[in-house]
Amino acid sequence: MTTVGIVGGTGYTGVELLRLLLRHPNVQVKVLTSRTEAGKPVADMFPSLRGQTDLAYSDLDIEVLKQCDVVFFATPHGVAMKHAAELIAADTKVIDLAADFRLQDLEQFEKWYGLEHACPDILKDSVYGLSELNREKIKTAKVVGNPGCYPTTVQLGLAPLFRANDTLVKPESIIIDAKSGVSGAGRKASMGMIYSENADNFKAYGVAGHRHHPEIVEALENISGLKGVFDHILFVPHLVPMIRGMLSTIYLDLTDAGDNTDLQKLYEEFYANEQFVDVMPANSSPETRSVRGANQLRIALYKPQPKKLVVLSVQDNLVKGAAGQAVQNMNLMFGFAENAGLQGIGLLP
Amino acid sequence: MTTVGIVGGTGYTGVELLRLLLRHPNVQVKVLTSRTEAGKPVADMFPSLRGQTDLAYSDLDIEVLKQCDVVFFATPHGVAMKHAAELIAADTKVIDLAADFRLQDLEQFEKWYGLEHACPDILKDSVYGLSELNREKIKTAKVVGNPGCYPTTVQLGLAPLFRANDTLVKPESIIIDAKSGVSGAGRKASMGMIYSENADNFKAYGVAGHRHHPEIVEALENISGLKGVFDHILFVPHLVPMIRGMLSTIYLDLTDAGDNTDLQKLYEEFYANEQFVDVMPANSSPETRSVRGANQLRIALYKPQPKKLVVLSVQDNLVKGAAGQAVQNMNLMFGFAENAGLQGIGLLP
Amino acid sequence: MTTVGIVGGTGYTGVELLRLLLRHPNVQVKVLTSRTEAGKPVADMFPSLRGQTDLAYSDLDIEVLKQCDVVFFATPHGVAMKHAAELIAADTKVIDLAADFRLQDLEQFEKWYGLEHACPDILKDSVYGLSELNREKIKTAKVVGNPGCYPTTVQLGLAPLFRANDTLVKPESIIIDAKSGVSGAGRKASMGMIYSENADNFKAYGVAGHRHHPEIVEALENISGLKGVFDHILFVPHLVPMIRGMLSTIYLDLTDAGDNTDLQKLYEEFYANEQFVDVMPANSSPETRSVRGANQLRIALYKPQPKKLVVLSVQDNLVKGAAGQAVQNMNLMFGFAENAGLQGIGLLP
Amino acid sequence: MTTVGIVGGTGYTGVELLRLLLRHPNVQVKVLTSRTEAGKPVADMFPSLRGQTDLAYSDLDIEVLKQCDVVFFATPHGVAMKHAAELIAADTKVIDLAADFRLQDLEQFEKWYGLEHACPDILKDSVYGLSELNREKIKTAKVVGNPGCYPTTVQLGLAPLFRANDTLVKPESIIIDAKSGVSGAGRKASMGMIYSENADNFKAYGVAGHRHHPEIVEALENISGLKGVFDHILFVPHLVPMIRGMLSTIYLDLTDAGDNTDLQKLYEEFYANEQFVDVMPANSSPETRSVRGANQLRIALYKPQPKKLVVLSVQDNLVKGAAGQAVQNMNLMFGFAENAGLQGIGLLP
Repeated sequence: MTTVGIVGGTGYTGVELLRLLLRHPNVQVKVLTSRTEAGKPVADMFPSLRGQTDLAYSDLDIEVLKQCDVVFFATPHGVAMKHAAELIAADTKVIDLAADFRLQDLEQFEKWYGLEHACPDILKDSVYGLSELNREKIKTAKVVGNPGCYPTTVQLGLAPLFRANDTLVKPESIIIDAKSGVSGAGRKASMGMIYSENADNFKAYGVAGHRHHPEIVEALENISGLKGVFDHILFVPHLVPMIRGMLSTIYLDLTDAGDNTDLQKLYEEFYANEQFVDVMPANSSPETRSVRGANQLRIALYKPQPKKLVVLSVQDNLVKGAAGQAVQNMNLMFGFAENAGLQGIGLLP
Repeated sequence: MTTVGIVGGTGYTGVELLRLLLRHPNVQVKVLTSRTEAGKPVADMFPSLRGQTDLAYSDLDIEVLKQCDVVFFATPHGVAMKHAAELIAADTKVIDLAADFRLQDLEQFEKWYGLEHACPDILKDSVYGLSELNREKIKTAKVVGNPGCYPTTVQLGLAPLFRANDTLVKPESIIIDAKSGVSGAGRKASMGMIYSENADNFKAYGVAGHRHHPEIVEALENISGLKGVFDHILFVPHLVPMIRGMLSTIYLDLTDAGDNTDLQKLYEEFYANEQFVDVMPANSSPETRSVRGANQLRIALYKPQPKKLVVLSVQDNLVKGAAGQAVQNMNLMFGFAENAGLQGIGLLP
Repeated sequence: MTTVGIVGGTGYTGVELLRLLLRHPNVQVKVLTSRTEAGKPVADMFPSLRGQTDLAYSDLDIEVLKQCDVVFFATPHGVAMKHAAELIAADTKVIDLAADFRLQDLEQFEKWYGLEHACPDILKDSVYGLSELNREKIKTAKVVGNPGCYPTTVQLGLAPLFRANDTLVKPESIIIDAKSGVSGAGRKASMGMIYSENADNFKAYGVAGHRHHPEIVEALENISGLKGVFDHILFVPHLVPMIRGMLSTIYLDLTDAGDNTDLQKLYEEFYANEQFVDVMPANSSPETRSVRGANQLRIALYKPQPKKLVVLSVQDNLVKGAAGQAVQNMNLMFGFAENAGLQGIGLLP
Repeated sequence: MTTVGIVGGTGYTGVELLRLLLRHPNVQVKVLTSRTEAGKPVADMFPSLRGQTDLAYSDLDIEVLKQCDVVFFATPHGVAMKHAAELIAADTKVIDLAADFRLQDLEQFEKWYGLEHACPDILKDSVYGLSELNREKIKTAKVVGNPGCYPTTVQLGLAPLFRANDTLVKPESIIIDAKSGVSGAGRKASMGMIYSENADNFKAYGVAGHRHHPEIVEALENISGLKGVFDHILFVPHLVPMIRGMLSTIYLDLTDAGDNTDLQKLYEEFYANEQFVDVMPANSSPETRSVRGANQLRIALYKPQPKKLVVLSVQDNLVKGAAGQAVQNMNLMFGFAENAGLQGIGLLP
C-alpha cells in the first residue's frame, strides 16, 4: 500500500480527503497532523468518521512525513512551501491544496497572498494539477499545486475553446459570474461565516479583486498560449446559502469563426474520454446537487443571443474543486486507476 | 378610507399585499377573491394573519369589485386584462401584479405569454409602474402594470446611466446575471418547486429565453430613448436556495465618457430624494437579507477592470419586486404619502 | 418622547430592539453602546438599518445612560447587574434581556452562570418580565428581568393548567422537547455556529443540563404556587437549521380531573384578552414561520392518547422570546399601549 | 451477478437504491419501472446518475420482473402486495420499501393505509426487515417488509432495554419526539412540500395520529415479548428544514432495576458486533449530518434526571431508514457480505 500523510486535517478539505482516501483501494493514511488538536482522534472532531478509522491527530513531524510516499497539504497558504524541499529530497511527493504551487508569477503570489515564496525553484518544477489538462506532466511531477475551486470550473469550462485551432472567442470579453456554497470559505470561526449571517441570504463578495483572478489569468494563458489578453477579464464570486456546490456562469463574445463552429460538438469531442467531465446536451441546466459529493464537473452551453456564448460549469467545490481532484492527481502520480477512490455517485437529493 | 379589492389572494404576492395593506393607514381591504378557496378565512390559509383580519375569500364578483376604489390583481397572467375595462368604467383603478400591462409590444406579449391581449386600448393608456421612474404618470393612471421583479432590479440599477446627458455605456454590452429566491416562482405545487429539489442546490434556468427579457428591453428603451440597441443583451436568471431575495449582477462596457465620469456621484445624485432606493458607498456588498421584508432596493457600483462597470442591485422580490411596489404605486395614484404602509424595517437576521 | 438607551447593540437582540424601537410611536433611542464598535454607525454593522437611523455606537457612559428614561441591556449575562443600582437611583428604569434578573434563587444563578450576583437587593425587588403573567407587577417595576426564550414558550404554554383551581396535571411528569433556530445562540464567531456546521443538520444539545431549566422550574413554581414538584422535569433543547423560530413540544400526564376538563376551552378563556397569545383551534399545527418577526406566541393542544396532553407552543425567539417581549414590558412600565411598536405582521413566506 | 429489479424508480428511495446498487459488487440492476416515465433514461430524471448507467424506465412487466433474482418495490403502499405471490412463485425474492409487509395486524393496516391486504398468507410468512434484530429470519425470507424510517430509529434505540433479562423501563411511559428532514415525505408535487413553505420553518405534524405508531407498537411488542403495554405510547413527528436526516428523542421512565443498571454498557455490548449501529460515548450529541448518505444509525444515552432515560437515535432517513437497510436485507438474503455496497462514508459537511 502506498502511504499517505495529511498535513492539516481539521478543515473541510482535510476531512474530505479522509472520506475519499479511507476507501481508496491503493493507499493507507498513516499520519494526520493538526497544530491544535494533536492527540485527538479525528473521529471525535468529525463524527462521520466514527468506526471508519482509529487515526488521531499528531504534531507535524517532518521525519514522520518523510516516511510517507505522498503528503497532502490541506493547510493555510504558505505551509507547504516550507516543507516541500525536505520532502521531495526524501522522495516523498507533495500535493498542496493551498495556493503555494498554483501561480508561477511570484509577484502575483506575493501581492495576493502576502507571502514571499519560500522555494521558487521547486515552484518552477512543480506542476499545476488540473488533471484533465495537465495529465502527462502530473504523472511525473514531484510537487503538484492543486487548483483553486473557482479556477477549476473556469478552465474546464473554457479549455475546448482555447485548445482548438481557430480563434473562436474574443478572449478579453470573458466575464465569470461565479457562485459558491459556504464550505468554500473553509472551516473558520469568523462572524462572516456564521449560520444566521448566511442562511436565506445571497451576496457578491470580492468584487474589487479576488485571489483566484490571477490564477485564472495564468491558467488561461497556459491553456491558450495567448499572453496578455486575459488580464482584464471580469471575475465576480457570490456566496450561496448552501454547504457544497459551485456554479460558474461564463459569458463570452464569439468571433465569426466561433459563431460558425458547432461548439457543442467541439466540447463533446474534447471531453469524450474524460470520465469526470460531463458535457450535457444542449439546453441542459447543470445543478450543483447533481455533483454533490462526486468528483464530477458538468458543463452546458448556450447561445442565447447572436455571437454570445454562455458556459455553465458546475462542481462540488470540496471534491472536483479540491480533495477529489487532489486524489485524482495522486492517482496519476502513482499510476493508479484514475478513478480509484473516486467512484462515489453524487448524493441526490 | 379608500377601499381595496384583491383578486387572487392565495399566492405569495397576495398574502404579501395583505401584510402591507392591513397596516396601511389610508385603506381598508374589502374583498379578497380566490377561485378555489371561496368561503375560507384567509387566516386559515396563512396563519401569520390569525388575529389580524376576519377576511374570507370570496368568488370573483365584478359588481363587488366595482365598489372598490382600487383593485389589485395578484393573479396569473391574463386575468386582469379581462376585467380592466369594466372596472375603470366604474371608476375603479386597477393595479396588475401580473404581466398584462407590462409590455406595450403586443407581439412580444403574445409570444412570451401565449395570450392574445384582451384590451389593447386600455393597455395603451396604462402606465408601467416603476414608481421612481414613472412617478408623474402613475399619479394619474387608471391602470398600472406593476413591473416584474427582475426588471425592477435592472431598471433601477441602470436608470442613472441612461438618463444622463452623455452616452456613458455601450448599451449592447449589457449582461444581467440575476439570482432569485424560490418564492419568486410563486406558490405552486409543482415538482420543480419542492423543498428537496431546491434546498442546498443552485442552478441557472431560462437561459435560452425568459419572459422578463422583452420587458427589460422595452423598459430600457423607454428609459434611454434608444431603440434597437438592447435587443440582444443577455439575461440569465438563477435560483437560490432562499425564500425571498433577488440580486442582479449587471456587467457593462463603459465608453470613454463613462470611464471619465464619477458614476458613484451620478447615482447618488440621481437617487438623492428616493427613500426606497439606496446607493451604497463604494466597495459595499448589498445582501438580500438587508432588504428582507422591506420596500427597499440597494445598489452598489464597482469598476474592477478598466472601462468595465459592475452594478449590484438587490431587493426583496415580494416587496419592492412585487407587492411593495404595487402599494407604492397605489400611494401615488391616491395621493397618499408615498411611504404609507411601507415603513417596515427589514428583518435581519 | 420617552428616551431609550440600549447597552450592547451588536448582537441579534440589540438589532431586533432597534428594528422595533425605531418605529415605536412613543420613544426615541438616544444611546447605543458597544464595547468594540464605538464610533461606528449602527447601519454599517446592520445594513437593514441604512436610511433608518443615524445612531452610532458609543462607549458605555453611565452618566449618559442615566439621562435616559429606560435602558435595555442586550448584553452578555452579568453586565446589567453592575449598573442597575446607579441607574434606578437616577430614576432610569432597567430592562435586562440577559439572565441577571431572571432567577431569584442566587445559588442557581451562581451555579449556572458562574457569577456572584452583584445586587441581590435590587434583584429581590425586580420583576420577572413575562408580560401576560406578571402584568400588574411589571407596570410599577423599576427593574425587569426579561425571560429566556425557551422559558417563555413553556410558561405561556402551561400557565392555564396551573392557574386553574383544580390539579389538572401531574407536575412531575412534564417533559419539554424544545427546538430553536440558530439565532437563539446569539451572534458569536464560534466554530459551532458556522453555516456549514449547522445547515442541513439537526441535533440535541445541553441534554445533560441547560441554564433555562432552573428558570423554568422557578417560573412554574411561581405560576402554580407549588414548590419542589418541578425540580426533575425534563428539558431537552434542539438546534434547527433555520434562523428564527422556536417550538416547544410539551408532554404532560393528566389527572382524572384534567382528563375530564375541556382544556381547549380553558386555554381559550385564559388567553381571551391577550393579543399576543393565540390559542389555535383543535388539531392545528403551529408553525414557526407563522410568527416570524411578530410579537406573537401560538399554542395548540392535543390529547393523542388517554390522559396524555401535548402542548405545542411556538414563537419567534428574537421577538416574543426576547426583544419584542422587552418592548412589551417597556410599554407596560410607561403606560403606553401594550402593542405600541409591536403591530408588525409576521413575514410569511 | 445477482439480478435486480426496481419497481418505482422515480421517488427518492428509488434513486437512493440506484446510488447504492450501481456500486454494489454482487448485483446488476436489470429493470427499473415507472408508471409515468417509461422510455426515459433514469439519468434524465436524476442528473447525478449521468454517466453511471444507461438504464431507462420501463413499464411494469411482471414477466420481466420474474427473471430477476430480487425485486425492490419503491412504490406507494399497496403495490408490492399485488405482485408478491407471482414473484415468489417464480423464485424471485421481494423487498418492499412501502408498508405492505410491515404490519401483521391486518386491522391496523386497513385502518391506517385504507387498503384491504391482497395477500394475507404471504404477509404471514414475510419477515420484518429490521436487519440487526431479525437477521436470522431475514436470511431465509422470500418477502421482506422494510421498516418505516421512524420505527427504525425507535427499535434500534430501544431494543437493548427490552431484550435484556430484567424489566428496566416502564414501557407505557415511552414518549417519542421525532424529527425528520423533508425528503422523508417523498418526491411529491404537493403544496405542503414546496420550498417556500418549508425552508426556515419548523412544525409538528400528525400529532393526532401517524401511520408509524402502530408499526412501532407491533415492533416493540415483538422485541420485548410484552403485549398491550405499548398501545398508548406517544409518538409526535416534526418536520425539519433539511433534506435528509432523522433524529428521535425518546423519553422513558426507568424502574429501580433500570436505574441501577449500567445502561451505557448494556447498549455497547448489545451492539458490539454491529457495524451499522454506533453507540456513542456518554454525553455525545449525535447529529444527522454525521450519517448523511451513510447506512449508519448512532445512539446516545442520557440520564438527565433521576430515573429518567433519554435516548437519542439518529440516521439518514433515506439510507438506514429506507434504501440502505433494504440493501442490507438483500445482502442477508443472498449471503453477500452484510456491508456490500454500504461502505460509503457520510458526507460531512
